Amino acid sequence: MKVAILMGSDSDFPVVERCIGILKKFDVEVVARVLSAHRTPHLAVEFAMNAEADGVEVIIGAAGKAAHLPGVIAGVTTLPVIGIPIKSSTLDGLDSLLSIVQMPSGIPVATVAVDGAENAGLLAVQILSVKYPELREKMRAYKSEMAEAVLKKDAAIQSRY
Amino acid sequence: MKVAILMGSDSDFPVVERCIGILKKFDVEVVARVLSAHRTPHLAVEFAMNAEADGVEVIIGAAGKAAHLPGVIAGVTTLPVIGIPIKSSTLDGLDSLLSIVQMPSGIPVATVAVDGAENAGLLAVQILSVKYPELREKMRAYKSEMAEAVLKKDAAIQSRY
Amino acid sequence: MKVAILMGSDSDFPVVERCIGILKKFDVEVVARVLSAHRTPHLAVEFAMNAEADGVEVIIGAAGKAAHLPGVIAGVTTLPVIGIPIKSSTLDGLDSLLSIVQMPSGIPVATVAVDGAENAGLLAVQILSVKYPELREKMRAYKSEMAEAVLKKDAAIQSRY
Amino acid sequence: MKVAILMGSDSDFPVVERCIGILKKFDVEVVARVLSAHRTPHLAVEFAMNAEADGVEVIIGAAGKAAHLPGVIAGVTTLPVIGIPIKSSTLDGLDSLLSIVQMPSGIPVATVAVDGAENAGLLAVQILSVKYPELREKMRAYKSEMAEAVLKKDAAIQSRY
Amino acid sequence: MKVAILMGSDSDFPVVERCIGILKKFDVEVVARVLSAHRTPHLAVEFAMNAEADGVEVIIGAAGKAAHLPGVIAGVTTLPVIGIPIKSSTLDGLDSLLSIVQMPSGIPVATVAVDGAENAGLLAVQILSVKYPELREKMRAYKSEMAEAVLKKDAAIQSRY
Amino acid sequence: MKVAILMGSDSDFPVVERCIGILKKFDVEVVARVLSAHRTPHLAVEFAMNAEADGVEVIIGAAGKAAHLPGVIAGVTTLPVIGIPIKSSTLDGLDSLLSIVQMPSGIPVATVAVDGAENAGLLAVQILSVKYPELREKMRAYKSEMAEAVLKKDAAIQSRY
Amino acid sequence: MKVAILMGSDSDFPVVERCIGILKKFDVEVVARVLSAHRTPHLAVEFAMNAEADGVEVIIGAAGKAAHLPGVIAGVTTLPVIGIPIKSSTLDGLDSLLSIVQMPSGIPVATVAVDGAENAGLLAVQILSVKYPELREKMRAYKSEMAEAVLKKDAAIQSRY
Amino acid sequence: MKVAILMGSDSDFPVVERCIGILKKFDVEVVARVLSAHRTPHLAVEFAMNAEADGVEVIIGAAGKAAHLPGVIAGVTTLPVIGIPIKSSTLDGLDSLLSIVQMPSGIPVATVAVDGAENAGLLAVQILSVKYPELREKMRAYKSEMAEAVLKKDAAIQSRY
Repeated sequence: MKVAILMGSDSDFPVVERCIGILKKFDVEVVARVLSAHRTPHLAVEFAMNAEADGVEVIIGAAGKAAHLPGVIAGVTTLPVIGIPIKSSTLDGLDSLLSIVQMPSGIPVATVAVDGAENAGLLAVQILSVKYPELREKMRAYKSEMAEAVLKKDAAIQSRY
Repeated sequence: MKVAILMGSDSDFPVVERCIGILKKFDVEVVARVLSAHRTPHLAVEFAMNAEADGVEVIIGAAGKAAHLPGVIAGVTTLPVIGIPIKSSTLDGLDSLLSIVQMPSGIPVATVAVDGAENAGLLAVQILSVKYPELREKMRAYKSEMAEAVLKKDAAIQSRY
Repeated sequence: MKVAILMGSDSDFPVVERCIGILKKFDVEVVARVLSAHRTPHLAVEFAMNAEADGVEVIIGAAGKAAHLPGVIAGVTTLPVIGIPIKSSTLDGLDSLLSIVQMPSGIPVATVAVDGAENAGLLAVQILSVKYPELREKMRAYKSEMAEAVLKKDAAIQSRY
Repeated sequence: MKVAILMGSDSDFPVVERCIGILKKFDVEVVARVLSAHRTPHLAVEFAMNAEADGVEVIIGAAGKAAHLPGVIAGVTTLPVIGIPIKSSTLDGLDSLLSIVQMPSGIPVATVAVDGAENAGLLAVQILSVKYPELREKMRAYKSEMAEAVLKKDAAIQSRY
Repeated sequence: MKVAILMGSDSDFPVVERCIGILKKFDVEVVARVLSAHRTPHLAVEFAMNAEADGVEVIIGAAGKAAHLPGVIAGVTTLPVIGIPIKSSTLDGLDSLLSIVQMPSGIPVATVAVDGAENAGLLAVQILSVKYPELREKMRAYKSEMAEAVLKKDAAIQSRY
Repeated sequence: MKVAILMGSDSDFPVVERCIGILKKFDVEVVARVLSAHRTPHLAVEFAMNAEADGVEVIIGAAGKAAHLPGVIAGVTTLPVIGIPIKSSTLDGLDSLLSIVQMPSGIPVATVAVDGAENAGLLAVQILSVKYPELREKMRAYKSEMAEAVLKKDAAIQSRY
Repeated sequence: MKVAILMGSDSDFPVVERCIGILKKFDVEVVARVLSAHRTPHLAVEFAMNAEADGVEVIIGAAGKAAHLPGVIAGVTTLPVIGIPIKSSTLDGLDSLLSIVQMPSGIPVATVAVDGAENAGLLAVQILSVKYPELREKMRAYKSEMAEAVLKKDAAIQSRY
Repeated sequence: MKVAILMGSDSDFPVVERCIGILKKFDVEVVARVLSAHRTPHLAVEFAMNAEADGVEVIIGAAGKAAHLPGVIAGVTTLPVIGIPIKSSTLDGLDSLLSIVQMPSGIPVATVAVDGAENAGLLAVQILSVKYPELREKMRAYKSEMAEAVLKKDAAIQSRY
């Protein structure tokens, strides 16, 4: 089980790191790369074209502003591609979101929320779970943990009123 | 290989139908249901909870306006959930898009473009391809067909100038 | 007179607390819970379904991003449901607002402003006032107090010019 | 049980009519008026101030563009006020929505979706149900009818696949 | 020459103060009031109705969020009304702007930029200049001063390259 | 009493015509010109610079898209300038509105609603009324007519319920 | 003098055709191609990489939705790249605009208005004019023609009032 | 090789400075001016009209809010004009962007991202490269440097996983 995470700039790393943390938690092998759709287009395309042969099963692309990286990757692979829109200093992430989610017919990118790095990791796990039942079991456990965390917070609030 | 497609209203069907067409083209079994997150919440939840046991491997949810269906499904299953934001008569689809893509941390929905039904189907195929290599082969062929269709259009335009 | 306030995350509490303060001021009994539409969906639904039998007369739901909690509650109760869109770190609250207010036909959510917690409390009081005349009297007094506060500020400004 | 519906212009009537239809269906008495916050401000204010004495228990205000009517009403009554943002020829209803929902602290307006007239009617019924149990029973029946309508549509779609 | 400035809340004062400064600079008499369209509607309306008799020739209204104050004033006076949309903590001022500028046909509000308090003052001066030629002379001088200030900054930048 | 109306393109005329109608109704002399800030900049500037000497007391500028005409005029005159944002085929008028209303400090443009041509005319009349009392009387009468028209529509609606 | 125009889909042709018309009018040689950044990425990249050697001096890319074509081209050429955002069926062209104009630092795309095909052609001519003085002369003539067309329209409007 | 950079206000300088840095790096002569389309319109127009005769080959205009400077310049020159939308304190730069990019047909402005000053400089270099081959060589080297910088960051990230 191997997931590749490409980010368009290392300034995206603080967000992307949360995605890597999720994947590590699920014992998914992670390949993390800084590859820009615009500054190193050939390397980004080459990486994406070789990804399947390299054992990668899901690719995650994170980018901000006119965020083309996930779409460019999706154009040259048949692996499922997940896109993380990164909020930049202007326009509050709307540019990144629309640049990633509004892909034209034929080339989907599975888009998560602006800065939604954890969810990109969890979505990758759910996709891998189609093939690897043990991941589904872990995901069930993860959902239970989340529910229990909510219950604790609920108890704390209830105790105040 | 079975994919379930839930739509919040049968008025979403003309868009959703394009998704079903894609899945049929790839010989993926399709279960299509009209189940509303708000008008038939128990049925929608029940369907989503039983989906894995019923052999469904990916769930697609299509909904408009305050589009909660994909997120509600994602809350009660560990299957990957794809969301199609449907454009309604006001706000040009922005409401549907944000209601689906901006899922809070923990519960991802793989979102495609507003009215992006074909891409939801193709994304489902790519997800299934992680497990079923024959689907990946078909997807490669599909991409080649798309490229050839572009080439024909390109030739037509070139012949004009 | 009992109002239930559900929040999707305890990070919503600093905003929600202002709503609780209003309700306490009007001597309305408050039940405050952290229940997520996505992480603890069954509990949220169960709470909403039992609310009427538990003596709750109005339910308030607060949530951010793809804010489904108020709509999910509204799907399983006939009590009036008020929604508070919570501003999150991206998109300036527009996602929360549209996810709550744009409910499809059949299942209304009475929506207040982004982070408009006081108004959610006051709206609950106005709704209860339909049944409890003493609340209406208190509301009249509250409006007078607000007007007097404006008058004091007005006097302060006038004294400067 | 009496609900007043004010619209800022008779051009809003085709939308407002759907709200009246809902209220009639629930046997709620309806007072429908064309009263503008800007062209007939004194009459609008006077109506709202007398509404409680006239037996009105909920006021609904519908308006487009810089839609001030519901907020102006809310300023001079302690009755619950519901706002319907009407989509006009420019800006796709966003102006109406923000003008109604973003009320400042102290004066809530229970806002429904852009052009969400049916939901305004249903919300009024839910508010009245706090006092009138027979309305709650009817609302339960209405929700069942909605669910059954969905089931029929679901059956129709299922029969196609 | 007298201009009245109404603000919906004293929290708007830091912005409004810049408008007052402009008017003082042009020796225009200023009446500054805190009067809310929602919390003190009768006083706001009464003030606006009496303004002409009180010698006021232009009214400026500043308000945030669902900013109804300028429109409400405009409904009950024939004086020219200028609106200043105040940016609040959510939605970046778009709500205030649309609530003020999108006035329905029949009742104009002369709208300036979000937080554009100086321009509201200058616009009032330009309006008064139609009647008072001495103000026009001062405005011409003001424009020259502005131009000279730009020239100085231009010289400073030019000296760097 | 003379008002100049400049439009950036004759395609704006169907909207601008409604403004001219209002001014004619108030017996205000109208000068209507097609002068583009971009295609005939010198003529537009020259017209605006001479306007005062030509007896013009208010200038109205109508333009769409990146609508610079009103701002360019305002830069070279001390007359009050009113801006009408014209809705074009894309972006629903938001571009025109922001290009006109968001003028930087020092150079105000009195902005009305998108396509709000009548209100531009009425605002011009209100500005002229500061000087010409007879216009104020006519405006009072106009407001009464508007109120009566609402009353008739109100009566028609009331007769239906 | 040769300009290449790439469009992501032949559905963009009705808009792009207006750009070609402008270039023909200026006797600039045009190469028009349908090449998709997503469906035929290698061809699009190959074309852009060879463009300089093929005598192309400016590249224009037109695309809609998540419009990556101009940015992808810009990544692999040092020629100036102009982007035309094409309005699609949802979101009114905002997605195309932001996807093209918000390019990250290092790789500019010279963006024109949504559906602004004529301006893309004129901008290409202006860029070529840096090298070819005869084009600048033609551009001057073109601007004069535009101004004269405005004058005729102006005369027509003036004759009506 | 000479490029003129006009900014509407010296508050734009911290952003514009990054553009100047790029041009200096490419040994392009820079003329930097503070000239406002609204406060010093005649000077701005005069500068733009004389620019070609002064040896300027590309003009860059930076402005915020209702950002008219680049469009006003473009109206009076046949040189290529690049626009930099500057983010101001409200509306997150959307106003500046739309005011610059949405130019009407006939007068293009080559628009870069909000605050995209480096890209404005690079675009100017690419435009000049059409005439000056040595700049193209430098641009190629610049692109290589950018790619190498990405590679270093990529290596740093890879070494962590």
